[in-house]
Amino acid sequence: MITVKARCTCGPHQPFQATEIERRDLRPYDILIDIAYAGICHTDLHYAHDDKQRTVFPLVPGHEIAGIVSAVGSGVTKFAVGDRAGMGVMCDSCRTCERCKEGLEQYCTGKRVLTYNSIGYDGELTYGGYSEKIVADERYAVRIPKSIPLENAAPMFCAGVTVYSPLRQWKAGPGKRVAILGFGGLGHLGVQIASAMGAHVTVLDLSLAKQDDGFRLGADDYRCTTDPTVFKDLASSFDLIVSTVPVNVDMDAYIGLLALDGTFVNISSSQQKPLSLSSVNLLTNRRSLAGTRSGGIAETQEMIDFCAEHGVMAQVEVIGADAIDEAYQRVLAGDVRFRFVIDVATMSDTKAAPPIAELKAIVA
Amino acid sequence: MITVKARCTCGPHQPFQATEIERRDLRPYDILIDIAYAGICHTDLHYAHDDKQRTVFPLVPGHEIAGIVSAVGSGVTKFAVGDRAGMGVMCDSCRTCERCKEGLEQYCTGKRVLTYNSIGYDGELTYGGYSEKIVADERYAVRIPKSIPLENAAPMFCAGVTVYSPLRQWKAGPGKRVAILGFGGLGHLGVQIASAMGAHVTVLDLSLAKQDDGFRLGADDYRCTTDPTVFKDLASSFDLIVSTVPVNVDMDAYIGLLALDGTFVNISSSQQKPLSLSSVNLLTNRRSLAGTRSGGIAETQEMIDFCAEHGVMAQVEVIGADAIDEAYQRVLAGDVRFRFVIDVATMSDTKAAPPIAELKAIVA
Repeated sequence: MITVKARCTCGPHQPFQATEIERRDLRPYDILIDIAYAGICHTDLHYAHDDKQRTVFPLVPGHEIAGIVSAVGSGVTKFAVGDRAGMGVMCDSCRTCERCKEGLEQYCTGKRVLTYNSIGYDGELTYGGYSEKIVADERYAVRIPKSIPLENAAPMFCAGVTVYSPLRQWKAGPGKRVAILGFGGLGHLGVQIASAMGAHVTVLDLSLAKQDDGFRLGADDYRCTTDPTVFKDLASSFDLIVSTVPVNVDMDAYIGLLALDGTFVNISSSQQKPLSLSSVNLLTNRRSLAGTRSGGIAETQEMIDFCAEHGVMAQVEVIGADAIDEAYQRVLAGDVRFRFVIDVATMSDTKAAPPIAELKAIVA
Repeated sequence: MITVKARCTCGPHQPFQATEIERRDLRPYDILIDIAYAGICHTDLHYAHDDKQRTVFPLVPGHEIAGIVSAVGSGVTKFAVGDRAGMGVMCDSCRTCERCKEGLEQYCTGKRVLTYNSIGYDGELTYGGYSEKIVADERYAVRIPKSIPLENAAPMFCAGVTVYSPLRQWKAGPGKRVAILGFGGLGHLGVQIASAMGAHVTVLDLSLAKQDDGFRLGADDYRCTTDPTVFKDLASSFDLIVSTVPVNVDMDAYIGLLALDGTFVNISSSQQKPLSLSSVNLLTNRRSLAGTRSGGIAETQEMIDFCAEHGVMAQVEVIGADAIDEAYQRVLAGDVRFRFVIDVATMSDTKAAPPIAELKAIVA
């Protein structure tokens, strides 16, 4: 076991604080990653705020991880010490079901183990990337191409693959008209990736505030969704709408934007209310409403390689570990271009901090 | 102009009565069809009861038409006198949009003209198949293979193609698990067609009353949806669910039956309330909810040829023209195996009846 510094929160809306957690000794197929940067995903906020009533406190979030391999187990073949490595939302799955065999671990019919707030096959609670080091099975880690700086790579292991996967699945490419709904952490990657795939890309966002960024990152059109004329102008025009927004939207308005055989894909599971839509609206143009859950490990590797080849990367604001609370407030306010990443090196400044077991006893 | 006998209703829930309507003189590409049988589609009831507040009374319903060509215009090439011909829900469309050019007239971006209760490009209201004869542009009529009796063919021009089209679109075939939700006029054709395509077919119906018919027509499994264990037993098991039911169902329960990349397709637009479903339920297994609107003319021809080749046809109860009201009551009660068709020859028994113009004046 090794002890590493981390940041945790002890309850909904409690401030983040320094702590120390333990990482397991390396098993034969494990690698030890010295984390350089950890992205702040909106999902982290949902867990930190216990929005779904399933958070185990103290919580160490973080599933957008980029770092350097500092040790490898005896059976490791994919990584060597010194390699650049990334991790996303999953750190394990059953490995035996058809989905796992096909590289669709995100749809594992057994048990997926998430990178934090999840019970592993060893019975231990997982702690995420807001920490100095993490131990990962090499099967669930991804190689990071040299052309992408680690801070720009970190958010791609959740945000990046989560938009890449539906764009591939629903065949974004030349001749296809794609809309990205929401221009934040996921959306700004969706625009770059869809554009790199050759699609015509429209941003649909609540304001035009980030329009310049949109065009700079590859958008062909950028529309403000509070302008009702947009829904007339763009009626029946998109082959694919990828919605990155974690709240309920007027489904019928957006479904109405789909062309023949068009699909609206939700990639967030955070809508508080059921989706509601008219049946006739789907019959018109033979439209579909779909959902997708991030991507598999092979697809995550494919995504980061594709992005490296096309000069795509996350646009980030690097923060220190003491600024997590402030960053969360700014995420809630939509005030970030486009993803916060924690510079994990700043954790080394911390003096002795209470072990997480001690904090856990207090929480209980 | 020729005058022909027909049956009409003069208002919501008014009994059907004999009338006389006029059919236009043949234009160069027109054919005159002596109607032998007209199917009673649930949509006819919606129009007759003015469920969508857009019925023009008096109404002559009927868009499942089978008969014999008795005259042809000077330019007609597809039909000769004596040929067997069918008509479905559309009798015209813009013919110039991309959809019409591709044979997807059901998604015409101009104006589709429906076979009844619709204003044609000539400005005249259309009257449907509950009548002795109809004039059709040959482009919107279909040839009926000799192996299918006309009474068994009639319902296939709406019910048949409406289930055939999504089964083709979502690739029902060997290795695919298909569920047909609702075992009525559409459902009993869906089972036969999906089975002929080589899929594994499960019927999901409100009772097991028609189970024997289900197995006889090709179902591999038949389940009663009021049995809650069904939703556990069949969880995540279908590649495609084609819903033929015209009412709202518990979407989340049915979406939960879809396997990875499975699709639930609605083919009815008669749901009174919006569809409501959980976003997470779609993310799980990357599921889709879709809609489809009947089929195009080329696809209707493909459907009837496919059905003839595979011995598929509608199972019907033939009724006289005086029994329409009773048949409507039985349709509402679900008491029909599986489609009523009106024997139009029985209309010739009627003595002189008031012209529809006269009835229209009274209604107004």
